[in-house]
Amino acid sequence: MNIRAVFHLISFTLIVLAVCLGGCTLVSMHYGDPSQAIRGIATSAIITLVGGVVMWALTRGRIDLSRRDGFGIVAFGWLAAALFGALPYLLSGAIAHPIDAVFETMSGFTTTGASVLTDLEQLPRGILFWRSLTQWIGGMGVLVLCVAILPFLGVGGMQIYRAEMPGPSKDRLTPRIARTAEYLWGVYVVLSVIELLLLRAGGLSWFDACCHTFTTLSTGGFSTLTASVGGYNRIYVETVITVFMLLASINFALHFRAVRGKPLIYFRDSECRVFLAIWLFGWLALAFNTWQTVYPTFGEAARNAIFTTASILTTTGYATADFDQWPNFSRILLVALMFIGGSAGSTAGGIKVVRIQIMVMTILRELRTYMQPHAVLHVKLGRKPVEPDTVTHIAVFLIIFVLIFSGATVLMSFWMPNLESAATSVVATLGNIGPGLNAVGPAQTFAFIPAPGKIVLTACMLLGRLELFTVLMLFMPGFWRK
Amino acid sequence: MNIRAVFHLISFTLIVLAVCLGGCTLVSMHYGDPSQAIRGIATSAIITLVGGVVMWALTRGRIDLSRRDGFGIVAFGWLAAALFGALPYLLSGAIAHPIDAVFETMSGFTTTGASVLTDLEQLPRGILFWRSLTQWIGGMGVLVLCVAILPFLGVGGMQIYRAEMPGPSKDRLTPRIARTAEYLWGVYVVLSVIELLLLRAGGLSWFDACCHTFTTLSTGGFSTLTASVGGYNRIYVETVITVFMLLASINFALHFRAVRGKPLIYFRDSECRVFLAIWLFGWLALAFNTWQTVYPTFGEAARNAIFTTASILTTTGYATADFDQWPNFSRILLVALMFIGGSAGSTAGGIKVVRIQIMVMTILRELRTYMQPHAVLHVKLGRKPVEPDTVTHIAVFLIIFVLIFSGATVLMSFWMPNLESAATSVVATLGNIGPGLNAVGPAQTFAFIPAPGKIVLTACMLLGRLELFTVLMLFMPGFWRK
Repeated sequence: MNIRAVFHLISFTLIVLAVCLGGCTLVSMHYGDPSQAIRGIATSAIITLVGGVVMWALTRGRIDLSRRDGFGIVAFGWLAAALFGALPYLLSGAIAHPIDAVFETMSGFTTTGASVLTDLEQLPRGILFWRSLTQWIGGMGVLVLCVAILPFLGVGGMQIYRAEMPGPSKDRLTPRIARTAEYLWGVYVVLSVIELLLLRAGGLSWFDACCHTFTTLSTGGFSTLTASVGGYNRIYVETVITVFMLLASINFALHFRAVRGKPLIYFRDSECRVFLAIWLFGWLALAFNTWQTVYPTFGEAARNAIFTTASILTTTGYATADFDQWPNFSRILLVALMFIGGSAGSTAGGIKVVRIQIMVMTILRELRTYMQPHAVLHVKLGRKPVEPDTVTHIAVFLIIFVLIFSGATVLMSFWMPNLESAATSVVATLGNIGPGLNAVGPAQTFAFIPAPGKIVLTACMLLGRLELFTVLMLFMPGFWRK
Repeated sequence: MNIRAVFHLISFTLIVLAVCLGGCTLVSMHYGDPSQAIRGIATSAIITLVGGVVMWALTRGRIDLSRRDGFGIVAFGWLAAALFGALPYLLSGAIAHPIDAVFETMSGFTTTGASVLTDLEQLPRGILFWRSLTQWIGGMGVLVLCVAILPFLGVGGMQIYRAEMPGPSKDRLTPRIARTAEYLWGVYVVLSVIELLLLRAGGLSWFDACCHTFTTLSTGGFSTLTASVGGYNRIYVETVITVFMLLASINFALHFRAVRGKPLIYFRDSECRVFLAIWLFGWLALAFNTWQTVYPTFGEAARNAIFTTASILTTTGYATADFDQWPNFSRILLVALMFIGGSAGSTAGGIKVVRIQIMVMTILRELRTYMQPHAVLHVKLGRKPVEPDTVTHIAVFLIIFVLIFSGATVLMSFWMPNLESAATSVVATLGNIGPGLNAVGPAQTFAFIPAPGKIVLTACMLLGRLELFTVLMLFMPGFWRK
């Protein structure tokens, strides 16, 4: 790995973060936060700026990136953001312990939404704003990562999307990434502005509307209310947020094409169709299961089922109800949805619908092979055949996901009261969802977990967000060679 | 599928079962069971014999088997055994409901060991003997299935063992299977006789020694005591059983070669080495985790850890302690061991060590591929390269295993109080182990589960035992074509 070049690029990330922290300082001053908070955020901005500039200056020179460096930039970029981004929590006194602060920040930048904070209403506005902003920035990072960087690194079979985005196609890597990023961010910002205005029109304060927009579009799930979106108890707000959670979990290339005059593209894309079908099936199952057992009317059951299914499947993690109190079938169905997650090329986490689709197709092909051993059968997605290499990448991705999930669950069982808490704490972080069940249910926080457990879960967030391989690469002996 | 030929072969199975049931009638008479029991078992023997003979007579003709028929013989053979084998329970009055009886019988023939019976000491001896015998017969079936049939059907990557067994190699399928079966059963019977004599020498009655031998060598786990092997509370008995559980979970081809003058073959075989290493790691972890938290002395902790780890990893399912009461880490580590299971080519269930090994190698190769995209890297087991096709088969097997596990867990959540019970009831049956945690822990039974839940778990036992594909094939539209 070309450490100098990698850290040179990361220095730009830090400078951007410093500017964002500067903005948070202004927000904090505007809302009259306690001076400790304002000073804390401002100091963090300065430290991050100095850190970024020093790193920039120390690593100047020609930038010549290899494939391997791509992995380094992504992994160390996210790590650096989580470390520097933790400063405001610590310096403002909002979070006392460094590991807790890094957990919260990693949860932000990976758009997970798992939190160690218990009483959000008591926090300074500037801190709440930063907390939501980390998710919005993280979402931007994820978009570029998933659609522009990972397909070129060939990670986890995501090369099926290599040709999806507009832009000159036989270009060198860097200009193409830049062009793709522009398009994606355009869509992201436009969707954000629309949601912001809709939430404001629904009576939310600019502050709340802004923070919830940040965490909806990034499928992050941090709220400004301890009771999450349920705190508003308003159908309009839930509807707007549901629609934008779903939009944020659909391949952004589709939005781009839809805006360009092909609004039916959503229904022509097989991943999108399956994604929406799973959501529909999920909320119907939940609505019927909670009707009369939890909610007296079907309407109320459906309202909560629609929102909760969207929130979990899109890996956002907002709550309008404590679904940990629902019947066992609903609870476990939600855990199954956590594994699935949203679409590839979106800000959602989880395994991703397209991977599950391709695996189901692979299984069917395999069964057909036993009957016709000499036939050459292809795995197809929609009508396009999927390359055998891609199928292998995806199979290996799934198996690593399951192995990491199992290993981390065994580890977490040291600090968790039962299998339910241990397993869902891992899937909720590895899938970048946020809440799990039982001890880490939607009405609980991750605060009680001892430091080593928080480190395991922080690692899970990063692993899941960077599609596993990017982080695992760092542990390969050959990776560090020049 | 050639239905006639398939059922012609299955008719022989029924005739063999009828003979075994005749033996059980004699046992029942010898021990002076109540007349209802003797009559019930004798009637079952006659019904099974008549069923077998009628089926034989109706399906006579030339036997010409295709690959597809292999799947049919295996799946319907096990199913027929489970249906006819349930008769003695029903007709003797030991189990009242047909679904419970089929559950218990399927648990026997698949060598699972999950039970709906609560007070074993009150059962007629003839029924207890039949219950243990179903596992011993099931174990014989499994050996032939795993080493002789499945490799030729190419199921789940098990073709890596195609060349393992002695016998003429370019033969047609049938004589080769017969030859291999002879060798395997020779080893199986010799090991059984040795264990029987050792247990008898340890003071067990002939009846108890015989029943426990049946269920050790088959890694089944049915006991004649409600308290399982813990009921004897004797180190000698536990030691003998531990050794034979381990032997039964090692590839039988190794035993064959060891007897032929290569006793060190166990340590030269990479799967065997890894299997023993997992067992060693498992019991050390459990011993240290239960020492002082459950057991005052390390000796006592180690004694229970050694036995329990062997029992779970070999998918036998005997208990000397209620491990559901152990610390959470021990409990969840045991669940992880349930997924792994024993070696291929043995009577053990689970995913199998060799599959996990090959998948870990595949993951490492995949990570190396990202660094050297143009290098052609092979997956190796020991020093032998594994064919790419085999790797795909195994990857697909693992993914199907995980999907069935997840789907069945969601289904079981309808009838189970929590995720722990739902998930472990599925892994305990799909992996052919027996006991799980919580509501299906070693001190509990499966009796409380409503009928639909028992049907799901019965299907899981069959799916797991027949390496998934064999059962799934039946649902392929092309399978039933002539």
